[in-house]
Amino acid sequence: MESTALLTDQYELTMVRAALADGTADRPCVFEVFGRRLPNGRRYGVVAGTGRLVELIREFRFTDEHLDLLRRQDVLDDRTAGWLADYRFTGDIEGYAEGELYFPGSPILTVTAPFAVGVLLETLLLSVLNHDCAIASGAARMVTAAHGRPIIEMGSRRTHEQAAVAAARAAYLAGFASTSNVAAGVRYGVPTAGTAAHAFTLLHDSEADAFASQIEALGVGTTLLVDTYDISQGIRTAIEVAGPQLGAIRIDSGDLSVIAVQARELLDSLGARDTRIVVSGDLDEHSIAALAAAPVDAYGAGTAVVTGSGAPTAQLVYKLVEVDGRPVVKRSENKRTVGGRKVAVRRHKPTGTAVEEVVASRCRPSAEPHDRALQRPYLVGGEPAADLPDLASSRAHLAECLVSIPWDGLKLSAGDPAIPVTMISN
Amino acid sequence: MESTALLTDQYELTMVRAALADGTADRPCVFEVFGRRLPNGRRYGVVAGTGRLVELIREFRFTDEHLDLLRRQDVLDDRTAGWLADYRFTGDIEGYAEGELYFPGSPILTVTAPFAVGVLLETLLLSVLNHDCAIASGAARMVTAAHGRPIIEMGSRRTHEQAAVAAARAAYLAGFASTSNVAAGVRYGVPTAGTAAHAFTLLHDSEADAFASQIEALGVGTTLLVDTYDISQGIRTAIEVAGPQLGAIRIDSGDLSVIAVQARELLDSLGARDTRIVVSGDLDEHSIAALAAAPVDAYGAGTAVVTGSGAPTAQLVYKLVEVDGRPVVKRSENKRTVGGRKVAVRRHKPTGTAVEEVVASRCRPSAEPHDRALQRPYLVGGEPAADLPDLASSRAHLAECLVSIPWDGLKLSAGDPAIPVTMISN
Repeated sequence: MESTALLTDQYELTMVRAALADGTADRPCVFEVFGRRLPNGRRYGVVAGTGRLVELIREFRFTDEHLDLLRRQDVLDDRTAGWLADYRFTGDIEGYAEGELYFPGSPILTVTAPFAVGVLLETLLLSVLNHDCAIASGAARMVTAAHGRPIIEMGSRRTHEQAAVAAARAAYLAGFASTSNVAAGVRYGVPTAGTAAHAFTLLHDSEADAFASQIEALGVGTTLLVDTYDISQGIRTAIEVAGPQLGAIRIDSGDLSVIAVQARELLDSLGARDTRIVVSGDLDEHSIAALAAAPVDAYGAGTAVVTGSGAPTAQLVYKLVEVDGRPVVKRSENKRTVGGRKVAVRRHKPTGTAVEEVVASRCRPSAEPHDRALQRPYLVGGEPAADLPDLASSRAHLAECLVSIPWDGLKLSAGDPAIPVTMISN
Repeated sequence: MESTALLTDQYELTMVRAALADGTADRPCVFEVFGRRLPNGRRYGVVAGTGRLVELIREFRFTDEHLDLLRRQDVLDDRTAGWLADYRFTGDIEGYAEGELYFPGSPILTVTAPFAVGVLLETLLLSVLNHDCAIASGAARMVTAAHGRPIIEMGSRRTHEQAAVAAARAAYLAGFASTSNVAAGVRYGVPTAGTAAHAFTLLHDSEADAFASQIEALGVGTTLLVDTYDISQGIRTAIEVAGPQLGAIRIDSGDLSVIAVQARELLDSLGARDTRIVVSGDLDEHSIAALAAAPVDAYGAGTAVVTGSGAPTAQLVYKLVEVDGRPVVKRSENKRTVGGRKVAVRRHKPTGTAVEEVVASRCRPSAEPHDRALQRPYLVGGEPAADLPDLASSRAHLAECLVSIPWDGLKLSAGDPAIPVTMISN
């Protein structure tokens, strides 16, 4: 268990130092995580990362070695180093469920703690949520575009080695079928997939040798990569070697909408009617949507997934909204910032379609028959809340949420948020 | 020391499995990392991440627990699990120095190893290089735009919690002065900076109380954040509390080019002629360049740094180029792919200005008087090479390289690579 306490901006440590000295460190505070806008005209965001937070917060402990170093650098004084040595997060955290949708102003996470206890988590909370929400929000659009066809996440190589694991998890949450990332399988139970790269074909004396070897090792249900040399010849060789029971072929280059049709016709003519076609190669939600009419059985997506498909960060912020029970707010031009702790509900028609999100500061929204409360406990007095959902149930929750938003909300084009957020305050 | 062996795509494991079974696992191979293009019309890329690789490769060991799990999932068979249990990287790795420039086709990293030994590192090598090169390449443009003014990296919260540490390192390599990220200071010795957020002002009963507390704790040389309420009043309060010896003010919002002028005039009128002005708030290379004439002393940059300023991945690939001493190459349309191990030199005028990069496959470039060889050893027989440069010297190397490229190569606008890459082959 590695400490997460250094995954922090230095100003959190210096603020704690000054607050301990002047006696404000213990003031009861409320901090909130929210976004001011959705990137690139997106119509919804997907909450992801909250399922990783509880463990990361429990690992947020300073070691003596690190405190000594920060003391020598004069980042800390003795009092602060002593206080940090005993640090455990002892506050409350509540927020939106993982897999929930969010919109501009949604209070995704609320931290209730003395100032010094709560301010220390700012960077860790934002790093996790800004990354994972960005990935899940982009990935959910790809899942919508794929219309039920499975998507394999294979972008690990295009992002930081540890971000890759979190990205695979977030993509699975968003509805991807599986990932190439082995660590995501081991850490989070995400189904994994993968068979061979072009290098495996190039390694062998012939494409037929490579295919025969792969089938011998992985069985005839495997996926053969057929585009190392000539695709048509690759498909013929694949079926010659594997027989018509071959599980799938993968095509990673070329104009996929044209090539998929040719490949399907060729496979069918060779009697391989049940052999599936997997396509990959710089796919994003738009190129996936453009393949809707092509005879494709599954997609592999990489770069676009792990970079949030044009929005690599969710741009969420962590703001102090209440001190000693009083709302506080920074002077803001053109920013929808309201002080005070928020309560959020989503309002629905009797049919179940969402119509509005109501975010109430320091008051409770009026109760309507089809409201759903959006906040749930994550940590209570520093201890994990009961019944924290697992990744599979969060994945199912997102699928339900996406069914509930108005039709226009699933469009890939830029537009307004799928439902409005109404801010009310006392 | 955590294992890095699971930071891998599953197909690497299944390829090893098939290659062990058919006897090709031991074939001598050469793999190369390169990019086919620079993103967004950039004129150069910056090599970064190689300084992190040696340690990550030495931690690439499979545990029995993980092998058992992968065996039960039938990703591995017994033979492969046994082979992986003993796995150590035993090959050679050479490549461009960290801080070196690269262009389309530059052989950034070359791995010489038996197939199974070399193919396993594909994802880890690419993840590190694609992330760190993307960050350093964007950050170097910001450093150019800042014309010698220091830039503080403060983007940790906008990216994955571990990617943030690597991003801070890559930005420092690129010439940033410091980072907010505490872990980057501890792990890599990057200078750290940070004083207070708006939350610290909001916590206190008045802005004057907050400033007085910060100065008491951190000294009068600290940086006061003056835009929580009214900026002009914030500056007056800062100087009232701190006196004209105040180290710096920070402004995080508004039209910075206008506000900086007003802030400078006000500080000067209050006698605080040496108090520096730090500005932050969604700065990238273009907004930094636009502030060249403003009386700004330092910049804080966040989101744009950690997302590669519009290019969050370097799109480098890892390709098998040689098997058993023979060049191999995938069929490629419109792709500059040449088989065989490459040797790269950069050619210069007598003045030191670079004019061309020559990349020779299976032959040596002709020797010219002002050539510089671009590849150096990283691992020899699995052991770290002698005299691996430290981060500070890599940072100095990049600064020298940027001086050497033609004038046009430093333009921020989209264009051609700063120098052409000439591919020659036997």
